[in-house]
Amino acid sequence: MGTDGVPARTGFSRRTILGGGAVALGAAGLGWGTATATNHGTDGPAGSQTEPFHGIHQAGIATAPQAYAAFVGLDLAEGADRERVTGIMKVWTEDAVRLTRGSPALTDTEPELARLPARLTVTVGFGPGVFDAVGRRDRAPEWLRPLPAYPTIDRLDPAWGQTDLLVQICSDDPVTVAHALRELVKNVRTLVHVRWVQRGFRRARGTENPGHTMRNLMGQVDGTENLRPDGDFDRLVWDDGAAHPWLAGGTSLVLRRIRMELDTWDELDRPGRELTMGRNLANGAPLTGTDEFDTPDLTARDQFGIPVIPPGSHVARSRFTHEGERFFRRAYNYDDAPTGPSTPGELSNSGLIFAAFQRDIDSQYLPVQQRLADHDALNEWTTPIGSAVYAIPPGVAEGDYAAGDYLGRTLLEN
Amino acid sequence: MGTDGVPARTGFSRRTILGGGAVALGAAGLGWGTATATNHGTDGPAGSQTEPFHGIHQAGIATAPQAYAAFVGLDLAEGADRERVTGIMKVWTEDAVRLTRGSPALTDTEPELARLPARLTVTVGFGPGVFDAVGRRDRAPEWLRPLPAYPTIDRLDPAWGQTDLLVQICSDDPVTVAHALRELVKNVRTLVHVRWVQRGFRRARGTENPGHTMRNLMGQVDGTENLRPDGDFDRLVWDDGAAHPWLAGGTSLVLRRIRMELDTWDELDRPGRELTMGRNLANGAPLTGTDEFDTPDLTARDQFGIPVIPPGSHVARSRFTHEGERFFRRAYNYDDAPTGPSTPGELSNSGLIFAAFQRDIDSQYLPVQQRLADHDALNEWTTPIGSAVYAIPPGVAEGDYAAGDYLGRTLLEN
Repeated sequence: MGTDGVPARTGFSRRTILGGGAVALGAAGLGWGTATATNHGTDGPAGSQTEPFHGIHQAGIATAPQAYAAFVGLDLAEGADRERVTGIMKVWTEDAVRLTRGSPALTDTEPELARLPARLTVTVGFGPGVFDAVGRRDRAPEWLRPLPAYPTIDRLDPAWGQTDLLVQICSDDPVTVAHALRELVKNVRTLVHVRWVQRGFRRARGTENPGHTMRNLMGQVDGTENLRPDGDFDRLVWDDGAAHPWLAGGTSLVLRRIRMELDTWDELDRPGRELTMGRNLANGAPLTGTDEFDTPDLTARDQFGIPVIPPGSHVARSRFTHEGERFFRRAYNYDDAPTGPSTPGELSNSGLIFAAFQRDIDSQYLPVQQRLADHDALNEWTTPIGSAVYAIPPGVAEGDYAAGDYLGRTLLEN
Repeated sequence: MGTDGVPARTGFSRRTILGGGAVALGAAGLGWGTATATNHGTDGPAGSQTEPFHGIHQAGIATAPQAYAAFVGLDLAEGADRERVTGIMKVWTEDAVRLTRGSPALTDTEPELARLPARLTVTVGFGPGVFDAVGRRDRAPEWLRPLPAYPTIDRLDPAWGQTDLLVQICSDDPVTVAHALRELVKNVRTLVHVRWVQRGFRRARGTENPGHTMRNLMGQVDGTENLRPDGDFDRLVWDDGAAHPWLAGGTSLVLRRIRMELDTWDELDRPGRELTMGRNLANGAPLTGTDEFDTPDLTARDQFGIPVIPPGSHVARSRFTHEGERFFRRAYNYDDAPTGPSTPGELSNSGLIFAAFQRDIDSQYLPVQQRLADHDALNEWTTPIGSAVYAIPPGVAEGDYAAGDYLGRTLLEN
């Protein structure tokens, strides 16, 4: 933080925008449309395409979602302090800079696997434990605490619970994800314990023409009402540093692991599914419309006076009641082995890794989550089994003037 | 089988070739070059591309390897007999025909997920238990039995062991694999138990320009010496029906789950790794050559009289000693969660799903495997933890004249 009370990060970021070239601009909050246009046009195999690591914001949030993700939850080893956390962040920054541009990590033992980043991004988050470990509890955002218990829906398994650190690794190539995951974890292996790894996927790059909303494994279009990269995105996702100057340019992540009860879902007929969702399954249109992106008319009634979109449907319950209740979802499907101790006798172990980014969990996310917990027809077929929240620090500045910048510096230094 | 002693399958296949069009030819053993050329040239998104299901041989073997695979091991439920196995095969045939062309399965509850096959193939195999269940033990090939024990290398976990049935599902899209897996398994859920699912991946489609040999997660090129789709492929992979007429056009699969000891591998320096493999890591060339596809010179010695390629290296030990010792590998990487009961304290749970197809396991596969078990420098960093063998029945004929053909018909009927 600057000594004049102006957050250092803000001034810093302005310099990045003013002084930087196209790369800095591309990552500087102009949204994913820009990032997409910049990077997808590259000739040659898709594996050589890159997403810029540096910028005001971390990559992997406004970045057009890659096909594969690994979310890694890690706990700090006994005795972690500010020096040690700083060391981890410097190592991760260095390795992320290298890996995202297709270069081997600093101590890469399989450098040939680093050659094709395929739009690799590495995004780091801080759980509450980090603030304690570094003696900065006063800098923890107020919203950085466990979500309220939702006893009617939650069946939380501590195996998927809160961790001190999060690394989100995304790429259009699964070999790249596997390699980056291993490099990032092994270089700090004595300082952290991996608690869980959640691997997810969307449609492979190129399977569909761009612009399709992804479908989840229940067959529903998932994300129609998501924030688009317009002015609202920046305002609703990125922290402005007002409450915590160190966080300017950062955001928050709510990560929920939501199991899909596919076996019982399959017993529900199509009309039942459409009433549950409030949407047409074939094209995702609300039951009051014809196109996926038509605005649902929650007041429309049929000839018998019955609401066309049931008030308890997922669309009706999840819809924001005012503009400030919106957040940005960047979800991935998971489909793990259907056998094993956690799923005796079940045919599938599938669901959604629900990742929601927003500036303020309390005002944007919680009202919607509470409404869904109170009632949502879809709840019968979805079960939250994991839950964690993270503060996502701002991005890392590039260039000589920013020598020594690293992930989390504004929290850890001064 | 024909009543005149000529295997019905053979005559049948000839008719398929002679009477069929381009689709039948593409799948009829002209090799993967043909299949690749036929299907990869399609315009539009990659998701709509198909691999032909019908043909003399099952798809998914000579098919250019797709990016994702799920190998599913299933056991027959108590009381299975020929009628029941026939029922399973008819259901799988019907659903595979539909799913591989991008149509919903017969009772598909998520039909929208079936729309993009992305070169989906479904390949079915029979373990020894099937022959017992259907009362056809006399038709089981001699090689269809557990591999010999290799006590110096094997650490086999029954959790990855032999099953009655195998389904190999491959596609360039992971959502398609997940959907096909669920549809194929749930439609026979009362008749089988899923014992294991092994999910694997290669580089995503489009990550590299075509023609690259894949690298495994140790960073090695993996498959340089593999059979190419020339005349040898057909002769060495496809059964001719001489011993068991029902198997004409089929083959065998050895499926080994090979854990990679990446933690100790990472401690080995680059020269040590190259001597272990007998190959240059950067480009895969044998230590006696400059190009990946140079033939290793196992007799070459350096100025001190020491073999350039160590006699104990993987290249030296795995190399065929005569043409008949070759087989076709179609391997996938796996990278499961590094934590959990099976891997306490380990950083990675990674390895190779080693799938080898050959006409005769005894004469083609076992000599090589025995040599590697006796000594292979690489053994220190690789551990077989799963092993199973399957007879792969021939493909399914298409057209009115073949009405009613289904997977395994030549074994199950008459």
